[in-house]
Amino acid sequence: MEVTETNQREVKTKTKRSIIDVDIHNYTPLDEIKHYLPRAYRDQIDLWGWRLPGSLYLNGGVKVGQMADSTPPGGGFPGSDLDFMRQQLLDPYHVEYGILTGSDYSCQASPDFDYAAAVSSAINEYTLEHWLAKDSRLKGSVFIPKQDPAQSAKEIHRVGSHPDMVQVIVSSGAEKPYGHRYYHPIYEACVEHNLPFTIHVLMEGVGINGPNTGAGYVSYYPEYRASRPMVMAAHLASFIYEGVFEKFPTLKVVLQEAGAFWLAAYLWKLDEDWKSLRFQTPWVKKLPSEYFRSNVRVSSQPLEPTPNPEMFRQMMKAVYAEETLMYCSDYPHWDFDSPLLALPKLDDELWEKVFYQNAADLYGLPARKSGKGGAD
Amino acid sequence: MEVTETNQREVKTKTKRSIIDVDIHNYTPLDEIKHYLPRAYRDQIDLWGWRLPGSLYLNGGVKVGQMADSTPPGGGFPGSDLDFMRQQLLDPYHVEYGILTGSDYSCQASPDFDYAAAVSSAINEYTLEHWLAKDSRLKGSVFIPKQDPAQSAKEIHRVGSHPDMVQVIVSSGAEKPYGHRYYHPIYEACVEHNLPFTIHVLMEGVGINGPNTGAGYVSYYPEYRASRPMVMAAHLASFIYEGVFEKFPTLKVVLQEAGAFWLAAYLWKLDEDWKSLRFQTPWVKKLPSEYFRSNVRVSSQPLEPTPNPEMFRQMMKAVYAEETLMYCSDYPHWDFDSPLLALPKLDDELWEKVFYQNAADLYGLPARKSGKGGAD
Repeated sequence: MEVTETNQREVKTKTKRSIIDVDIHNYTPLDEIKHYLPRAYRDQIDLWGWRLPGSLYLNGGVKVGQMADSTPPGGGFPGSDLDFMRQQLLDPYHVEYGILTGSDYSCQASPDFDYAAAVSSAINEYTLEHWLAKDSRLKGSVFIPKQDPAQSAKEIHRVGSHPDMVQVIVSSGAEKPYGHRYYHPIYEACVEHNLPFTIHVLMEGVGINGPNTGAGYVSYYPEYRASRPMVMAAHLASFIYEGVFEKFPTLKVVLQEAGAFWLAAYLWKLDEDWKSLRFQTPWVKKLPSEYFRSNVRVSSQPLEPTPNPEMFRQMMKAVYAEETLMYCSDYPHWDFDSPLLALPKLDDELWEKVFYQNAADLYGLPARKSGKGGAD
Repeated sequence: MEVTETNQREVKTKTKRSIIDVDIHNYTPLDEIKHYLPRAYRDQIDLWGWRLPGSLYLNGGVKVGQMADSTPPGGGFPGSDLDFMRQQLLDPYHVEYGILTGSDYSCQASPDFDYAAAVSSAINEYTLEHWLAKDSRLKGSVFIPKQDPAQSAKEIHRVGSHPDMVQVIVSSGAEKPYGHRYYHPIYEACVEHNLPFTIHVLMEGVGINGPNTGAGYVSYYPEYRASRPMVMAAHLASFIYEGVFEKFPTLKVVLQEAGAFWLAAYLWKLDEDWKSLRFQTPWVKKLPSEYFRSNVRVSSQPLEPTPNPEMFRQMMKAVYAEETLMYCSDYPHWDFDSPLLALPKLDDELWEKVFYQNAADLYGLPARKSGKGGAD
């Protein structure tokens, strides 16, 4: 996306109403995060470096996976400059609210739980001070050391009530599927602070997490991308079959950046098997698709492209898009989805749900200030 | 399915033409297999038992996962009695050919590679003698110690040319995805003997195999079932991205018992990512869906139920069912698919492909002896 006067005008013409973008990757550079860490860790970092598991061995997009034109004019990493983000994303696309999802989830795959907790807190402090305080359109995600549920709950209690924090975020890479009772202290805290629990693809097969597929480690980046929906699918089945939505009926879970249409056949299968096997898990009281509709939301990017409009229509229905799907751009990653191109044309009502209302309802965001735009 | 004179007559009325069933689980009891093992292993078994990893901790259907009425009249385990299989499956449903897929894949998850090889050979010998020699409709699957590719190739060379052996079979549970170069000696042997490589769900998360999802171990049987398509998906991406179908263009791979419609959105995703990322894996020369069509076949059971006929039609097209889908019953497992109920009504041409021709082409099976039936 080249930002010129011309295509900015074009954007303004085409986007009739403002939107909510639920996945914007603001850059959280380690040299900034460091200032928010306790002295002991700062000293250790000076001596040994960051001791965080590297995940880039799995990546391979242009410029470490960033959009070719997303480097700020003054230099710096894509997603690091708020002014440039305003110019490139928030203003031209009329982003009324943008949910920041950070850029570095590596502490969540560290075996050192206290360090993971300290880095998570530092990311949260940095984000509050350098991003959320500076533009009221932006809302934040609470990073937690999810491998340590007790400390995670503590961090949620510490910053989760800040009005600009609207969700808790974890990487999809995990030691156990997220429905497991091991994690329930996290959901208790989420429910208390009315924060959705968002699972974002990343860190699968990295650090303390197991292999990224049920058949072992993958070799290449496209293969890794192919594995992402599967890991998300495992989390979803786990939430349902461990009875999490019975124990925490108000908990909302967001599946982020794993696509959406794989959910169609997956929900058919889950429902079918529930019908014949539910006597084995009597605490699962409803059809899996019913839990999905009531407790799960899905972000759009990268949406699997359908072969024809009728299939698209059927797929949107099959994943209950009207209730569950939320647009996101994934800015500034290489596979950025412009709101003008992310989806085939939707009728007005569905557009409003996907591009605004589903996210507004989920995150409790106030209604639009104007019909037009979100800049303030 | 209760076998009475009445419903047998009904079956005969409804099935106009004979069919091929590509997944029939004949029981391969350990006390029979034992006779075919070398003396040293027989002695060890007498002393220590079988030393095979148990997978039933993940199961939970009725009668260890068997159809309630599949116990032979004279007793014995479901699938153990050829006469009863004829009476219950082969005759009434006009099975022209039935591919036997055995019942016990546990040796393929054993860390003792030589023992796994010996048990595989014993299963093959038992199947040849007690099943394939006794009914010309039945065809067999070569069990291999797939965790040891060199010995696997040896076993394929040993029995793969027997005219009644029509494929090589492995469990979906694996240490590495099957496209990995580690396994290529197996494909060399498959190609030499013109045998498809069939991956059957089982042993995921068991024995030497890693956790059954990319997010760790699952807790319950329905959750385990939900994970099966994902493991199969990992194998499929691996075959494509490791370039196996470029190295072995005539190799055919069969995905068995993981459903089929999950493949629709999965292939859309694979194709989409190939378009933008193929510069990273230049040895992958075609769209993933093209490799799928030319080199992969899928068995039908358990097929995800679609919400409406139009979606079914679209799904069949999206997974290229006309070229790739093969009916199977999964007899005598609890979720047995009768050929009369397995799929919504198909037009004649598609029915013929799915219920006969795709399998006949894949396995090189001669044309029907009669329009009606397969009994001989």
